[in-house]
Amino acid sequence: MFKIIIIGGMAAGCKAAARLSRLSSDYQITIIERNPFISYGNCGLPLYAAGEIDDFYELAKTGYGVIRDEKYFLDVKGIKVLTNCEVEVINTSQCEIQYTDRKNNETNILQYNSLIIATGSKAVKPGFPYKSSPCISSFHSPLEAKNFKEAAQKGKVGKAVIVGGGFIGCELSEALVSLWGIETTIIEKEDSLLLKSFDPEIAAIVENTIRLKDVNVMLSTEVEKIEFDENELPVVILKDGAQIQSDYVFYNLGIKPESTLAEKAGIKIGTLGGIVVDENMKTSIPNIWAAGDCVEVNNLVTGKPDYFSLGSLSNRMGRVAADSIAEENSSFKGAVGTISLKIFNTTITASGLTEKNAKDCGYNVGSVIGAWSDRPDYHPDVKKLFGKLVYEKPGFKLLGLQLIGEGEVTRYIDVFSELLANNQTAFDLINLEHGYTPPHSSPISPLNYLGSMVINQEKNKVKNINPNQVPFFDGIFIDLREPLEIEAAGFSNKVIPIPLSEIRAHRDKFEHSQPIMFLCERGPRSYEAARIFMNYGYNNISYLGGGNSYYKAAGKKFDIKV
Amino acid sequence: MFKIIIIGGMAAGCKAAARLSRLSSDYQITIIERNPFISYGNCGLPLYAAGEIDDFYELAKTGYGVIRDEKYFLDVKGIKVLTNCEVEVINTSQCEIQYTDRKNNETNILQYNSLIIATGSKAVKPGFPYKSSPCISSFHSPLEAKNFKEAAQKGKVGKAVIVGGGFIGCELSEALVSLWGIETTIIEKEDSLLLKSFDPEIAAIVENTIRLKDVNVMLSTEVEKIEFDENELPVVILKDGAQIQSDYVFYNLGIKPESTLAEKAGIKIGTLGGIVVDENMKTSIPNIWAAGDCVEVNNLVTGKPDYFSLGSLSNRMGRVAADSIAEENSSFKGAVGTISLKIFNTTITASGLTEKNAKDCGYNVGSVIGAWSDRPDYHPDVKKLFGKLVYEKPGFKLLGLQLIGEGEVTRYIDVFSELLANNQTAFDLINLEHGYTPPHSSPISPLNYLGSMVINQEKNKVKNINPNQVPFFDGIFIDLREPLEIEAAGFSNKVIPIPLSEIRAHRDKFEHSQPIMFLCERGPRSYEAARIFMNYGYNNISYLGGGNSYYKAAGKKFDIKV
Repeated sequence: MFKIIIIGGMAAGCKAAARLSRLSSDYQITIIERNPFISYGNCGLPLYAAGEIDDFYELAKTGYGVIRDEKYFLDVKGIKVLTNCEVEVINTSQCEIQYTDRKNNETNILQYNSLIIATGSKAVKPGFPYKSSPCISSFHSPLEAKNFKEAAQKGKVGKAVIVGGGFIGCELSEALVSLWGIETTIIEKEDSLLLKSFDPEIAAIVENTIRLKDVNVMLSTEVEKIEFDENELPVVILKDGAQIQSDYVFYNLGIKPESTLAEKAGIKIGTLGGIVVDENMKTSIPNIWAAGDCVEVNNLVTGKPDYFSLGSLSNRMGRVAADSIAEENSSFKGAVGTISLKIFNTTITASGLTEKNAKDCGYNVGSVIGAWSDRPDYHPDVKKLFGKLVYEKPGFKLLGLQLIGEGEVTRYIDVFSELLANNQTAFDLINLEHGYTPPHSSPISPLNYLGSMVINQEKNKVKNINPNQVPFFDGIFIDLREPLEIEAAGFSNKVIPIPLSEIRAHRDKFEHSQPIMFLCERGPRSYEAARIFMNYGYNNISYLGGGNSYYKAAGKKFDIKV
Repeated sequence: MFKIIIIGGMAAGCKAAARLSRLSSDYQITIIERNPFISYGNCGLPLYAAGEIDDFYELAKTGYGVIRDEKYFLDVKGIKVLTNCEVEVINTSQCEIQYTDRKNNETNILQYNSLIIATGSKAVKPGFPYKSSPCISSFHSPLEAKNFKEAAQKGKVGKAVIVGGGFIGCELSEALVSLWGIETTIIEKEDSLLLKSFDPEIAAIVENTIRLKDVNVMLSTEVEKIEFDENELPVVILKDGAQIQSDYVFYNLGIKPESTLAEKAGIKIGTLGGIVVDENMKTSIPNIWAAGDCVEVNNLVTGKPDYFSLGSLSNRMGRVAADSIAEENSSFKGAVGTISLKIFNTTITASGLTEKNAKDCGYNVGSVIGAWSDRPDYHPDVKKLFGKLVYEKPGFKLLGLQLIGEGEVTRYIDVFSELLANNQTAFDLINLEHGYTPPHSSPISPLNYLGSMVINQEKNKVKNINPNQVPFFDGIFIDLREPLEIEAAGFSNKVIPIPLSEIRAHRDKFEHSQPIMFLCERGPRSYEAARIFMNYGYNNISYLGGGNSYYKAAGKKFDIKV
């Protein structure tokens, strides 16, 4: 028999094992997993912690309710699974691995013809001092989720601190507040949440969403250390000396590839700490493949190595590793890094590079920002949608998109992701065909609009202004909204009000070279007015992307120089 | 001034006019519309008729609540709009049009430098005899929607008949039943609803959805004529002699291009009755463009002319016509025909060709059918999703997709639409990256699965069987579900039950050349078992796509030869 060993029994490892077992009965497949569980949906841990899923094993069930445990893998797939077993050494020259069975502390050696490393990721540990405690958790493993849930169920968690405002931190805050009513604080050392995938002005909408649910968000705040009070409960001590008493501390400071074992075996590790693989998931050493969160992947936008920890990619990588071993034709060329999360009814998605990332990569970056209704305004279910598109100025090549809203959001990031993977441009956005029906979308999709906004900005010089640039704008602001709208929520009394329907009548009122910025509720009226003024010979015209609705969504005040 | 006349004040015409007004102030733009209303969202008419939108003018409002009427177009866009004015003649040699103002019956002549024809579509009239009556309507215009709504509000509509089971017919049935409690019958002469975009086995799910809401669906049924009873109410008389008493009859027999005016002017009309245009929306006659529902477009899948009536395409065509007049660089290369509708909480979408269409076009067609959960099974909001993919066997080129479900559906059709427009293959489906998060999707998307199903069928010979082929299958059926599932809803006692976990133990029980079809609840277990048996040397193995869940969704009985 051809012996295949797979180290790691989560998405990538189990997918590879299952695929191999389907491709041939000639393989003797063994999965070795150091934890007691395998093949569970770890993206569901926040739901489990929140109590929306009662039983942890729900996360490990097939669609027909059978738990994917050792017996399932053996009976159904003919795959042997060793849980609680930790591989300690990969002896590449002998094609064997040595593992310790934690159930009896015995050490064994297994031979392989092919080896797949699917060791996943690990939580980044805090740099500040703290002692380990059941009340301090990275929420990275099911055991940690279970511990927290039991404590919450016993009413032991009244206050919690989340150190790190990334994806898991934000998702957790919902679980803590909505379901357990825990007084929750997020501490983030940067000046914005979700910085890896969102520019600050978009993350500000997320921040406001979370704040409105009574989560205390502390930005630009660093933890000095964690101490314990007389009841052995953690006290978070900040660099400025402030102290936050709590019952539970989560640190969510990012995750990194679990590649120690591979590194020890002499397998090539990349600059980001992940295992280096080719398109077939082959590592630098013969007969060894790697897949999932332990590898670095090619960023299809930049062409450089990147690190994404995404269950969707892990599954695809696992399949490709299996196909490669079985000499089936498939490949994994990389990813654009499309992420999606839902927090308090708000769906937050991004694909590709943020403006900051793109600049750091050396691109000549342009961006546009906008607000739309996610379906026709006459539809009773209409919701707001905000987005920022990042592109390369020469050629209008797409670089990234950030979208946020309470209604239809994910469909647009999925399509954008595909365009991005194929090096497409803003013109391709304009030409997109989508499944239009009023209950789900508008006839012109936000992606169509974003494409037009780029072309209008670059070719026709109608500047789209990001709200974060408003304080630096030195010129005239004209509010195009109707009097009733302005009364309800005005920008500022420093802004000249002229409803759009009257703007043509004011076409000779201003200096043609004077910088003028048009403002309205969402943007389209401002764009319209900008074109009107430009057609009449004004040459320094811009409009505010997202308009007043952006400020409302971000809970910010419109802030101008006076 | 450069004079531009636009005939038709709906999506394409208004979009072209608005774009032209933004591109330059040198254009004198006139829209001529024969109806009293312009620029309303006519896809919202069913919502208006249903009462979900109170006021018709909601459909014609901007996002900030201003009605897009003559005054709005003049004040904001500098565009003159003539409503209730019907163009009777286009004199192409003189570059002028003659129209009659219905308000005073005066006839006028206008000159143009450029003319855009955006006359839209018209309802196909019934072939059977009927006399015109306020109780017989095509539901194609706002006046018809208004008349019906007033009758319904007065309680005058207890029973209604919809002749024609296409999109509008199905959408209307929801409005009639859900909101007005009207006893409703759909009469369709073909043996399936929605035949233009859906194969019968997928349309059967729609049919069942509608039937479960107490709509009476009569397929393969033809109307002989409509007569009137002593109260002047319509009686629908069928070819078989049966009579259906009703208060209101809608005929929804499809729509066709309103191209009579263009044809009279000598403009080239295509085989489908639509105006022929190039990629810039130019017609066969200089200085005349056409856009929207009155034109035929290039089907990007077949490369042949096709006819789609979609607001999303009309907007894009209107923009391109304007750009062409203004000598801006843009083009409309055609469409794949992506449609979407929502009926009774079920979202129904399709893109490209049905299996029948594809065969009629001469393709060597393959197809796969499947059922999935739209997010992880552990998620509380999980919903079923059914789909059928149509492809060309050589090269696995994508030809079409039909998807139906109550949850996340539209995102997949949007992405598919983009792949289809770019001539992509099943391999590209496997490599798709999507925004994965448990509240919105599974790590492996239905599109990823569909791609794998095609490759597995074509390369690895694991046949996916369409439920409509089951009655013709001459072999052994094996039900892989757990005993509990079978008790709850068994296929048939003619089917051999062997749970998946025991299938390996039965690997020597059957003739290796015997045709065997595996069945389960949705399909994955059957696929798994098929691979297991094939690996053990069986060579005539297939599995039922969509499994028992398909029969449940379609309200059908599993039907086998015995």
